Amino acid sequence: MARSLGRMCKALQRLGSVSSMQSQLGRPSSCVSFRTDSRDMLGLPSAFFSKPRDFSLPNSSWGPEMMRLYEQYNSQCGEETEGGENREGPWKRLPSYNRFLKYATGGVYLSRMIHKKARLFTRNNRDQGATFEYVLFFNSEEDKCVGVFQAGHLLEGPPGHVHGGAIATMIDTVIGTHATIACGPVLTANLNINYRRPIPLGNTVLLESSVDKKEGKKVFVTCKMTSSDGSKLHTDSTALFVSIKVSQLLLGS
Amino acid sequence: MARSLGRMCKALQRLGSVSSMQSQLGRPSSCVSFRTDSRDMLGLPSAFFSKPRDFSLPNSSWGPEMMRLYEQYNSQCGEETEGGENREGPWKRLPSYNRFLKYATGGVYLSRMIHKKARLFTRNNRDQGATFEYVLFFNSEEDKCVGVFQAGHLLEGPPGHVHGGAIATMIDTVIGTHATIACGPVLTANLNINYRRPIPLGNTVLLESSVDKKEGKKVFVTCKMTSSDGSKLHTDSTALFVSIKVSQLLLGS
Repeated sequence: MARSLGRMCKALQRLGSVSSMQSQLGRPSSCVSFRTDSRDMLGLPSAFFSKPRDFSLPNSSWGPEMMRLYEQYNSQCGEETEGGENREGPWKRLPSYNRFLKYATGGVYLSRMIHKKARLFTRNNRDQGATFEYVLFFNSEEDKCVGVFQAGHLLEGPPGHVHGGAIATMIDTVIGTHATIACGPVLTANLNINYRRPIPLGNTVLLESSVDKKEGKKVFVTCKMTSSDGSKLHTDSTALFVSIKVSQLLLGS
Repeated sequence: MARSLGRMCKALQRLGSVSSMQSQLGRPSSCVSFRTDSRDMLGLPSAFFSKPRDFSLPNSSWGPEMMRLYEQYNSQCGEETEGGENREGPWKRLPSYNRFLKYATGGVYLSRMIHKKARLFTRNNRDQGATFEYVLFFNSEEDKCVGVFQAGHLLEGPPGHVHGGAIATMIDTVIGTHATIACGPVLTANLNINYRRPIPLGNTVLLESSVDKKEGKKVFVTCKMTSSDGSKLHTDSTALFVSIKVSQLLLGS
């Protein structure tokens, strides 16, 4: 027990140093996420990690609309060419794993000790296409985040349509990621959703978020969710997030 | 295709007659739910149904706090005694299945035709204790609804804690059920949640909802979520629901 506690404290200290380490690596200090399990966003060397599955890449369950939007944004992403040069692009695809903690500095130890069976709510089902299929992209120049979601058959609420809680989950995922990019580790403080039109199961929707303002530890974000072609508004929403320290959360909330 | 359409229309007509049928059975016409898969609430004879599993009954994954609250409310529920008499009680346990549609009048046909693999979002995981374990109770005299939820390890958002979307899902489940009891079939129009304190994975929480007012097709509901002993406030929230017709939803939203 004492040894576990010692390991945990050391891991927490390392977690606390993520921001400064990112700065050293030339990345902004604002990219620690609890929501998007963002190993890539942390900018840490691959030696820290085993090779997890990146769930934000296409799989056989993705339908035509999901693939169309993925390719639309992915084709505008910066990438390393075969010649080893970096191609510029306004968008960046955000990889997504089934747990954040494991992929942060020191998180390997923590994830073994703290609820090792835990999995990210939006990535907890192994049956491809059954629940949430999604990919997020971020545009740093325009400070915009988009999410493309395909709603599986296990998300039912009203007959044949997506549950209101599943819709809230999609929104929280996109705006939480955006707030995290803007301010570092955050928790949702307020989420206010107007549901305008039900979403049939199987449909693909597009979520777009914008940061309205920052005030100290607070960041205000808005988000709208439309049909994949943008013609139908499903929801509009606002949210407030507050910055937190990871160690505070883990050592007793 | 034509035959399927014909069956569907007949089933929809039957669904449309649920309210009047309920009245004939001496039940209020306000108990059709999309959220709580309420075969029992519909008051229909068992011959209409196969025998589905009632997920709101205790299982081996339920911890001491979950069991304590279940027994606290269940002991105050009305029930039929061994002698065949009805024992009075202010509370009623609301059974819960993994799909609504199948258990409404005519819904057997619809559930075969419309997304037959679909499952209620909150009941889509067969691994007991992994996601949402919950039971709802309703008190008609006080017009109060409570939900007791135990949060499983697959609901993670912030490390070791419940995802904001999973919390929204719990709230939507309780207040959606309450609004349905008050006004018949409804859809969520607005959901506004203040997140006050994170919920550690594995914890049991208590949700209590009240109907504030009704205006035509609108019903306004409030809800607070506390720790199982009531000492810590996790969220407070408000919501607006609007009445709808089932057939409108199914034939094109």
